[in-house]
Amino acid sequence: MSAGGRLIALEGGEGAGKSTHAVQVVNWLQARGRRVLRTREPGGSPLAEAIRGVVLDDWAEGVTPLTEVLLMFAARAAHLAATIAPALARGEDVVCDRFVDASWAYQSAGRGLAPEVLSALEGFVLGDLRPNLVLLFDVAPEVGLLRARSRGDANRFEAENLAFMERVRRCYLQRAAAEPARYAVLDASAALPAVQAALLTVLEQRL
Amino acid sequence: MSAGGRLIALEGGEGAGKSTHAVQVVNWLQARGRRVLRTREPGGSPLAEAIRGVVLDDWAEGVTPLTEVLLMFAARAAHLAATIAPALARGEDVVCDRFVDASWAYQSAGRGLAPEVLSALEGFVLGDLRPNLVLLFDVAPEVGLLRARSRGDANRFEAENLAFMERVRRCYLQRAAAEPARYAVLDASAALPAVQAALLTVLEQRL
Repeated sequence: MSAGGRLIALEGGEGAGKSTHAVQVVNWLQARGRRVLRTREPGGSPLAEAIRGVVLDDWAEGVTPLTEVLLMFAARAAHLAATIAPALARGEDVVCDRFVDASWAYQSAGRGLAPEVLSALEGFVLGDLRPNLVLLFDVAPEVGLLRARSRGDANRFEAENLAFMERVRRCYLQRAAAEPARYAVLDASAALPAVQAALLTVLEQRL
Repeated sequence: MSAGGRLIALEGGEGAGKSTHAVQVVNWLQARGRRVLRTREPGGSPLAEAIRGVVLDDWAEGVTPLTEVLLMFAARAAHLAATIAPALARGEDVVCDRFVDASWAYQSAGRGLAPEVLSALEGFVLGDLRPNLVLLFDVAPEVGLLRARSRGDANRFEAENLAFMERVRRCYLQRAAAEPARYAVLDASAALPAVQAALLTVLEQRL
């Protein structure tokens, strides 16, 4: 195991239970003596959280896919500079609720933005940095959206329709299939104890 | 003269008097029967104005050049979609206090961001759209900063130093020299009536 910090991203559609599972990942790492920073996107620094407020809000003028992706990467650039990079440099593991895969799934597959735009922004903002491990909590959109909406007020993404969430899901699964060493897919439709048991196995095998 | 709307940008360093001169440009166009929309960057739509609030604010964590330019182009994308493009399509002239040249001058020349990043964002957000006329109000930084600060509280840009504003000025002048048909340089160090007389001449010759 490397002494340096590792970046672990939790991904998945709405209602996949990422926040619950992030706690388990943090606890598991801390129990093994790791210092851990838990964070989220969009957000993760005061400036990035302010951008989150803007991009998740409802705007009467609408939010074009291009405006949306530029705001997401602006937030990511701030988050990276202020929070993630310093933590990794201190040797801490970073557990992040959503990261760059979410931009591919939501802004490219979901909104239809050209992959060239995503690739360019990814290169400018991340350079060579990619998550060491992406935990993909896969759930059927009809199940996930129901869960997400039962939590209360929906933001612009949670209010999206099934077809949008199907595109998001397919993109996540394709990315996981293309790079199995860096992704682990967990069936988040299962009951919570079953997902947690599967997550434990993944953590023990991969970290 | 084309029946379609024209995009006219006012540019220049801090304290160049753009706001005052924008009024003259609008009045001149309206006196010739044009419908005119006056707007500004960053901002120009409710969403873009919210982004303006974020990007001009002071953040304890700092604002990296990359975060800054992504926010500027996010605001520009929203402004274009909600305000500028519809006005031009209605045949209105758009008079804009700062536009894309400001990103080249401030974020690239000023902050040192790679031109490749600027070019890519410019292409994604503007496509082929460029201002029909850029009115560059050129003023020596020591004069302009003094004027800007005498107005009261300085934002992050107005608080920049002379060396930064020299780079901004040089970039603006280089861009104007490279494309004289689309730029007009006005000496904004002169007394207001002299600048206004020069502006009148430019408007009569160019529009």
